[in-house]
Amino acid sequence: MKQINQLAPQDEFIGFYLIRELTVKQTNGNPPKDYFDIVLSDSSGQLSAKYWDASAADKETFFPMGLVKVQGLAHLYRERLQIKIIKMRPAADGDGVSLTDFIRSAPIRPVDLIYAIKQAMGSISDPEIRTIVAYCVGKVEEKLMHYPAAKTHHHAYFAGLAYHMARMLEIGDFLCKQRPFLNPDLLKAGIILHDIAKPEEMIAELGIVSDYSVQGKLLGHIAMASSWITEAAIRSNIDLASPKVLGLQHLVLSHHNLGEWGSPVQPQTAEAVALHHIDAMDAKLQMVEDALDTTPENEEWTPFIRGLENKAVYRMKL
Amino acid sequence: MKQINQLAPQDEFIGFYLIRELTVKQTNGNPPKDYFDIVLSDSSGQLSAKYWDASAADKETFFPMGLVKVQGLAHLYRERLQIKIIKMRPAADGDGVSLTDFIRSAPIRPVDLIYAIKQAMGSISDPEIRTIVAYCVGKVEEKLMHYPAAKTHHHAYFAGLAYHMARMLEIGDFLCKQRPFLNPDLLKAGIILHDIAKPEEMIAELGIVSDYSVQGKLLGHIAMASSWITEAAIRSNIDLASPKVLGLQHLVLSHHNLGEWGSPVQPQTAEAVALHHIDAMDAKLQMVEDALDTTPENEEWTPFIRGLENKAVYRMKL
Amino acid sequence: MKQINQLAPQDEFIGFYLIRELTVKQTNGNPPKDYFDIVLSDSSGQLSAKYWDASAADKETFFPMGLVKVQGLAHLYRERLQIKIIKMRPAADGDGVSLTDFIRSAPIRPVDLIYAIKQAMGSISDPEIRTIVAYCVGKVEEKLMHYPAAKTHHHAYFAGLAYHMARMLEIGDFLCKQRPFLNPDLLKAGIILHDIAKPEEMIAELGIVSDYSVQGKLLGHIAMASSWITEAAIRSNIDLASPKVLGLQHLVLSHHNLGEWGSPVQPQTAEAVALHHIDAMDAKLQMVEDALDTTPENEEWTPFIRGLENKAVYRMKL
Amino acid sequence: MKQINQLAPQDEFIGFYLIRELTVKQTNGNPPKDYFDIVLSDSSGQLSAKYWDASAADKETFFPMGLVKVQGLAHLYRERLQIKIIKMRPAADGDGVSLTDFIRSAPIRPVDLIYAIKQAMGSISDPEIRTIVAYCVGKVEEKLMHYPAAKTHHHAYFAGLAYHMARMLEIGDFLCKQRPFLNPDLLKAGIILHDIAKPEEMIAELGIVSDYSVQGKLLGHIAMASSWITEAAIRSNIDLASPKVLGLQHLVLSHHNLGEWGSPVQPQTAEAVALHHIDAMDAKLQMVEDALDTTPENEEWTPFIRGLENKAVYRMKL
Amino acid sequence: MKQINQLAPQDEFIGFYLIRELTVKQTNGNPPKDYFDIVLSDSSGQLSAKYWDASAADKETFFPMGLVKVQGLAHLYRERLQIKIIKMRPAADGDGVSLTDFIRSAPIRPVDLIYAIKQAMGSISDPEIRTIVAYCVGKVEEKLMHYPAAKTHHHAYFAGLAYHMARMLEIGDFLCKQRPFLNPDLLKAGIILHDIAKPEEMIAELGIVSDYSVQGKLLGHIAMASSWITEAAIRSNIDLASPKVLGLQHLVLSHHNLGEWGSPVQPQTAEAVALHHIDAMDAKLQMVEDALDTTPENEEWTPFIRGLENKAVYRMKL
Amino acid sequence: MKQINQLAPQDEFIGFYLIRELTVKQTNGNPPKDYFDIVLSDSSGQLSAKYWDASAADKETFFPMGLVKVQGLAHLYRERLQIKIIKMRPAADGDGVSLTDFIRSAPIRPVDLIYAIKQAMGSISDPEIRTIVAYCVGKVEEKLMHYPAAKTHHHAYFAGLAYHMARMLEIGDFLCKQRPFLNPDLLKAGIILHDIAKPEEMIAELGIVSDYSVQGKLLGHIAMASSWITEAAIRSNIDLASPKVLGLQHLVLSHHNLGEWGSPVQPQTAEAVALHHIDAMDAKLQMVEDALDTTPENEEWTPFIRGLENKAVYRMKL
Repeated sequence: MKQINQLAPQDEFIGFYLIRELTVKQTNGNPPKDYFDIVLSDSSGQLSAKYWDASAADKETFFPMGLVKVQGLAHLYRERLQIKIIKMRPAADGDGVSLTDFIRSAPIRPVDLIYAIKQAMGSISDPEIRTIVAYCVGKVEEKLMHYPAAKTHHHAYFAGLAYHMARMLEIGDFLCKQRPFLNPDLLKAGIILHDIAKPEEMIAELGIVSDYSVQGKLLGHIAMASSWITEAAIRSNIDLASPKVLGLQHLVLSHHNLGEWGSPVQPQTAEAVALHHIDAMDAKLQMVEDALDTTPENEEWTPFIRGLENKAVYRMKL
Repeated sequence: MKQINQLAPQDEFIGFYLIRELTVKQTNGNPPKDYFDIVLSDSSGQLSAKYWDASAADKETFFPMGLVKVQGLAHLYRERLQIKIIKMRPAADGDGVSLTDFIRSAPIRPVDLIYAIKQAMGSISDPEIRTIVAYCVGKVEEKLMHYPAAKTHHHAYFAGLAYHMARMLEIGDFLCKQRPFLNPDLLKAGIILHDIAKPEEMIAELGIVSDYSVQGKLLGHIAMASSWITEAAIRSNIDLASPKVLGLQHLVLSHHNLGEWGSPVQPQTAEAVALHHIDAMDAKLQMVEDALDTTPENEEWTPFIRGLENKAVYRMKL
Repeated sequence: MKQINQLAPQDEFIGFYLIRELTVKQTNGNPPKDYFDIVLSDSSGQLSAKYWDASAADKETFFPMGLVKVQGLAHLYRERLQIKIIKMRPAADGDGVSLTDFIRSAPIRPVDLIYAIKQAMGSISDPEIRTIVAYCVGKVEEKLMHYPAAKTHHHAYFAGLAYHMARMLEIGDFLCKQRPFLNPDLLKAGIILHDIAKPEEMIAELGIVSDYSVQGKLLGHIAMASSWITEAAIRSNIDLASPKVLGLQHLVLSHHNLGEWGSPVQPQTAEAVALHHIDAMDAKLQMVEDALDTTPENEEWTPFIRGLENKAVYRMKL
Repeated sequence: MKQINQLAPQDEFIGFYLIRELTVKQTNGNPPKDYFDIVLSDSSGQLSAKYWDASAADKETFFPMGLVKVQGLAHLYRERLQIKIIKMRPAADGDGVSLTDFIRSAPIRPVDLIYAIKQAMGSISDPEIRTIVAYCVGKVEEKLMHYPAAKTHHHAYFAGLAYHMARMLEIGDFLCKQRPFLNPDLLKAGIILHDIAKPEEMIAELGIVSDYSVQGKLLGHIAMASSWITEAAIRSNIDLASPKVLGLQHLVLSHHNLGEWGSPVQPQTAEAVALHHIDAMDAKLQMVEDALDTTPENEEWTPFIRGLENKAVYRMKL
Repeated sequence: MKQINQLAPQDEFIGFYLIRELTVKQTNGNPPKDYFDIVLSDSSGQLSAKYWDASAADKETFFPMGLVKVQGLAHLYRERLQIKIIKMRPAADGDGVSLTDFIRSAPIRPVDLIYAIKQAMGSISDPEIRTIVAYCVGKVEEKLMHYPAAKTHHHAYFAGLAYHMARMLEIGDFLCKQRPFLNPDLLKAGIILHDIAKPEEMIAELGIVSDYSVQGKLLGHIAMASSWITEAAIRSNIDLASPKVLGLQHLVLSHHNLGEWGSPVQPQTAEAVALHHIDAMDAKLQMVEDALDTTPENEEWTPFIRGLENKAVYRMKL
Repeated sequence: MKQINQLAPQDEFIGFYLIRELTVKQTNGNPPKDYFDIVLSDSSGQLSAKYWDASAADKETFFPMGLVKVQGLAHLYRERLQIKIIKMRPAADGDGVSLTDFIRSAPIRPVDLIYAIKQAMGSISDPEIRTIVAYCVGKVEEKLMHYPAAKTHHHAYFAGLAYHMARMLEIGDFLCKQRPFLNPDLLKAGIILHDIAKPEEMIAELGIVSDYSVQGKLLGHIAMASSWITEAAIRSNIDLASPKVLGLQHLVLSHHNLGEWGSPVQPQTAEAVALHHIDAMDAKLQMVEDALDTTPENEEWTPFIRGLENKAVYRMKL
């Protein structure tokens, strides 16, 4: 079975794919006829596809995020590869295919990522900080297994958020060793909490964000996480006036660094400065790595990357 | 007894004044002698003053924010009026003077402002919104009687914050009548809550802010008030997921309108848009009125006003 | 007769509508055939429509801004409702329909808006200010009956400009009562004059701006209104050096507040500061109200609104 | 008689100088004594000076912008050259000195500059444009003989404004020859009118601006000049709707290029684009030339120049 | 033979044109058929064209940047003129047509432009500066005959870069005469060198830039030219520490004036300030002239011009 | 001998200190007398000091950056600690004190820093990259032993530049292990080269920058380092068109990330993105650490730090 990124013009093929997007359109004819404008994907990439003469029954059968078995023909349309779907049916239980095989995903298993995060959480020596972090993680624990870190910006795939946390924890560990003036408890807590409300800010399935939630739009994940810390402290009988609560809320509130990037206050503790830079470093380098990975090996330049001053990245070969 | 703004060069006078600032300095002579560099004020304004040859006893007797009886001489120094203090003693109980007579203050009595705010609070028809507002007001009720609304920006005087709220409530009432699509409960609540955490963000005495609190610097009054709403809901058994909690937090979080002005989200409800404009209108017009009031009647231009694009205001006379 | 916003898929209908836009296009066939791509509207909204096989005669008969009687079929095209026009003829005198019934319009009759504006103008106590205002209003009086306040930004409908003025005058009245240091003559004059040149800056018909005039592009309504005040003063023998002329020109020139928003000077009188904030408050709240009104009741979010930091507004329901 | 820029430490000298600034100050002693803190200048530069023990009579005798005969001693104070004034008296009629010998001035005589400007004005072939230009020049003709072009920014000296105009006219002539698509009438008129209201925007004496006028602050020279064109057209019976009036107002209004630099509209005619660049080129190059001229020959770097991105200019020697 | 800009609807014509762009598309039919979407151009302008039913042979015959003989029909499509190609064949040697007759080109012959540039270069009196300039010109001499100055911004046509240099040299000559404090050697060298690396920064053919080179993207023409000066000095045994090398590199590095426009340092010598303003003046005025030239004479407004604050230019007629 | 940061009011002391700044001033008396306004420092901090009645011989004896033996008295002046110098003489050879004991310095010995840098350089596997890096390091090797990384921004002390490099190399090592898609040769080379021209951009002694060099101002360290790479390649017979030269120049040119921060191009390779974030992380965290170290332990807040959005850092204690 051919992966999406291995198809070439004039290939006829049969395989299983994910319908990532599906729109019913009509031909320009008189009378117009319905057809499907589809995006087919697997874990290697995605392609445009047409399914002509969609019947009423077809319209009740095929939906976005459904797995399908496709007989198709790859051809060039306006100089880009496109698929003409000849036959298509929904995948059935007996087909032995699973949605998660067809989506882009962090390179480490979610269960291992969660394990690493919990290890870090368990290693926080201050019990009150550990309790607050655990309370907040508990609110989204199930979603942490699969949520992306953002809609498109970075780590926008299955378990991307947990992957972002786990890698930041590694950088944080390194920095605490290199610079002992940093407080490891605060830095670990800040890394785990900084984006902890993202699963409630965004609506996502299979690592793909379809929209922001109402709460996400009206409050944003930064203010939400800050309120969760308040809630955690009250529920756990931790003094709201404690410097620990203050320190954790400051880490969360300031981690975007500037007001125009969404932070109502700027970093003013050593760990808050560190957190912002660890976050930026991991996000930007992951953007670069992901862009290079999903750009065909023979192309020198990736597409433009919004988070990198809208520049493309060059595949430097020495 | 002459008011500060009535003194003229060569006036000899006796009166009670407030020591707003006091610094011990030393003359350039060899050996240098100590003297006091003082700012004397009353409710009409303030002036620089010198108290030469300060003794060790004087240094234990006179402090900022103390009332004193002064025998002095007004004279010009570098073209500006200055006071030479000939004799000075702390005001005593029998003098019948009170600190509050000597400071700048809102033009309406604090007790009346608080009454107006409580009236508005009581007129909120939704009991949960009313409860949340009352809880938050309760946290700072005593300070509301005297806190300014800002360090220097606007309403920077005794009870300035309550005055700001009360006047905004008047504008809000007018707008709800003019535009019935606005929800009066939300708008009143938003007006009362938007700056409710300022008394904990700033350290003030007698209407004068000396500094921001640690919490004020690390969290800011916007995130603090948002967390107070969470706290109020939990303590009052109101569902944290209620649209009322969401609506109130959105009002508080968005009222500065832009990220670079400190709001992590932008106004996205009708009442949030209204709140921002009511806040701006009241603050800016009060800046203008206060600047004109404290500029001598015979001067055409006020000093530059930072909040008005750093422009001076012209006293237009037709 | 069904209103546009009541049509549902598969409705067959007959009714009168306005052709808001009409473009002659050609099918992709060989040879291509002409058809009309039309936007039909009434006061409740607008919809895309196709009129296939447009004849040469049709092309001489149907034009934008014409009223037509339509027999049509509503259907979904690319998931959005669209009209297929089966038959169509121009409305005739005997049909008893009038253009103004088919366009979006201020919620108050133009004649009442003009009356309110003239009342305000008549209440200006200073005769020279009143004369200048009257002269400028006189230049565009006829257009004030129907001009919008902007192309798309706000109050973009029939008599939108007069509606904007009338509502601002209400806010101005309130503020002058709340803050007696404001000069009512100047504030009323400022409100009436601030956008008075817009009818010459823009080319509009039935409340719809098709373009800016050459003068509008090269001078802008702010500089135009400022020159009109000069003209008014000369024609009425009012001293050009009078502080009244200066005060009025300052109000007009500064009302956009910042250079990047088109004001060559910033507000530097109390009334100029007030004018800017009244203008902003009325424009922004009207954007919100209009967006909510024209968004179907069952949708939570309005479209993005450029003038509100490009945010959508949430229909908060408590 | 020594020029200011020729004085060296320990020089004793007698000469005539201009009191550019004079402030009465008091020594720190007890009792303090009055002395004068003075800035003495001639056409070569300026220096700080002290006049100790100023008597009551002295305070009635010496004022800023007065010529004085000085017996003085140059010495170093805090590593900078300063003058101790030993004796001083006002210059008398018989002294044969004239204020204009003591101030910085354009390198060409005002009468010649005015002649060049009038020549250019006379060479405008369109009679209506010529009439409007002449009317506006007529309003400030006397002041054109001596006004600077700005307070400090550029050409800030005697007849600086006329010098700026005359040099811009030379560049304009060159450009019209190099690029015949430019209309010389419009370009000449634009050059002469663009800053024509500056003499009413600023209050200046002897080429030194002391302040902006009320009109200058509230309207700005750009809007003032635009209104003058309206006035000129009305007084000369030129149709206000003429493209000539429009073209001239556009030139004036747009010459600062951007809103944040004070232009309510951006250049949209060929001549308006040319005018902006001629203005910028002449102003910036004159800043450079003047900074190099007034920096001692042996210093490599001029002071920082605000109009040149706040950079210093290096005296490159090859 | 009709020029592109003379064609009118319903004209049938035969002539030679350049295929500026060619894309193979497919009709919406089932099965879809291939056709060519073409842009035809000559030196007077360009138009869209369709070539229906493109055969396999056609797809091997016709390519962008090829000259063709066309029999066609002009008609209106969506209100814009379009060409239906009836017959088409590649131009043959015997046709006597040459590519360079069909492209937009500087109004002066390349050979004359190069001559002017070399004259200026030869007139540099300092032998080391002259040597460095000659070395850098030598690196791109062949490309200078035809390269444009930019992709779309300005002088985007055959020999546009040489034309830009030649015209700037004229302005430079004028300025050196008007302001003798400028060093003509440095200014000439700066003009010739400022964009000298553009032919290596961009990939162009026939005056049309298809892309930036890898080096162009990763280094930019400013840093490239700066390194070329280093290279020139080393190869010519000129001291790298010489003020001449420093002065030339400063001219190149600073000529975009601001960091956000690509200059790592700001102009800090007289000639660098001059160079920036000469560059801006020539580029902007050429944009205006070219926009007016390529806009049909009967249209009042050019398209929007990105480099002119995205404004259109008005064809002012007096 | 007391360290500067251990002195308390009324301490009389004798010790060796560095004269960091010395200005000859004059008392306000008549006649004025010369005195020295001095900044005394050692490795623990610095204090203001006065040396009254400076004789002509004193003025020839004491200079900035000289070591002196001081007998002094610490006292409060305007609420800050100040030193009155009673006696003072230059340190002599026999005193056994050395300049380097009195200045602020990186916490690791320069020789060890240089060793670490050379180790990293030696571990570059590509011989051409290694050669280029070695050539550039060779140009400033002696200065690398003591130069600071900036004038005030960060690492502004003895060997600060080498310390910055060495710590960045550690982060780079960690990142290359965490993310194997990064090329270690390029990243090491980028870290060593990115600020390599700073010793020629700035004029420094003992870790203190007194000014920028002429070359530093006119070219900046970024363009200088880029040219050094050109020079290194030419001198070492490495092809200028090699991707290695291109990659190294891109790293240097882009490391400030944005044009407004001095980079003419933005990072467009993986290693360039990494380099920018390593640089920012090390610089910002060092600012925080240094600010906390030099703020007395009992103060909660450091001074404002320009490079951290001008915020102070809070000494969080849990």
